[in-house]
Amino acid sequence: MIMNSQKNSVPANTGIFTVIHNRKSVRNFTGEAVTKEQIETILKAGMAAPSAVNMQPWAFIVITERKTMDSLADILPFAKMLYKAGAAICVCMIPEKAYEKRVEFAIMDCSAASQNILLAAEALGLGAVWTAAEPWEELAGHVRKILGIPEEILPLNIIPIGHPTGEDVKKDKFKPENIHWGKW
Amino acid sequence: MIMNSQKNSVPANTGIFTVIHNRKSVRNFTGEAVTKEQIETILKAGMAAPSAVNMQPWAFIVITERKTMDSLADILPFAKMLYKAGAAICVCMIPEKAYEKRVEFAIMDCSAASQNILLAAEALGLGAVWTAAEPWEELAGHVRKILGIPEEILPLNIIPIGHPTGEDVKKDKFKPENIHWGKW
Repeated sequence: MIMNSQKNSVPANTGIFTVIHNRKSVRNFTGEAVTKEQIETILKAGMAAPSAVNMQPWAFIVITERKTMDSLADILPFAKMLYKAGAAICVCMIPEKAYEKRVEFAIMDCSAASQNILLAAEALGLGAVWTAAEPWEELAGHVRKILGIPEEILPLNIIPIGHPTGEDVKKDKFKPENIHWGKW
Repeated sequence: MIMNSQKNSVPANTGIFTVIHNRKSVRNFTGEAVTKEQIETILKAGMAAPSAVNMQPWAFIVITERKTMDSLADILPFAKMLYKAGAAICVCMIPEKAYEKRVEFAIMDCSAASQNILLAAEALGLGAVWTAAEPWEELAGHVRKILGIPEEILPLNIIPIGHPTGEDVKKDKFKPENIHWGKW
């Protein structure tokens, strides 16, 4: 589903607050292709995330074959939208590379990278959604098998990416009661 | 250090890719104040993050008193920049609220919120840096004590925020070898 087309060749320089607040979990895709250029723009954003002591304990698998996306959709209960996605990214944690080799830091760092990925997709006019692999050992095992991920690498999530049908809308999740001023 | 000034009252609508790539860990602050309005803009961005099954297992403590920031700087080895920060945010995880009550989901969700916070600070012309509390139990305990955080809440990090001196510069962390096309 990846094409080297010039469509959307210049990333939209969309205002960050607009993108942050417009980003939503997109689960309905048109089936249209996502270009290699779009994926690269998205992954460059992902790798710009901070990581503990700059260890960058991450890797990214770009899934583009229909057959692989279908296999993942078959076994992942929360990732059925892969059947209509244009591509998908599996964000992988490398605990051996993480600060103090702690998996918690790998989760934090790869989650920050994932958030950048979701924002970049929104900014490009695409839609995306974080579907979990870890911490579910069985699901993560299926993902590892399908994508050939080595034992010491943990798939944090699968992020299907595609052209939104428009059915998914943003939510306002601002709650002043979540803010504690001064102390808890 | 918080003032209700009208300075920076309209958030800069900076292009998202510029902000994502310009964001850096800012550890050197001028000591200038951060406004309440800026903090609110930053926290609205934080709460716009996705969370597993939309559980939003987070809360945010805004630290504005010089005395509190100094106490935290005294005991946190990686947060000495709090002495010169204008404010700080402690992103708190609420595992009881997280999907399946799993702390891993709380880490993911609060990390995505933290990344939005860091991006929003950059977009406002401020600087910020993620300094860890969890997973270090002893440090997290100190933070909990100083900020009056209940036992069942876990402080993920302390994010000092302030006006950058300009000493901290962005890094290019893009590595094509981190990308696996098709399979690992």
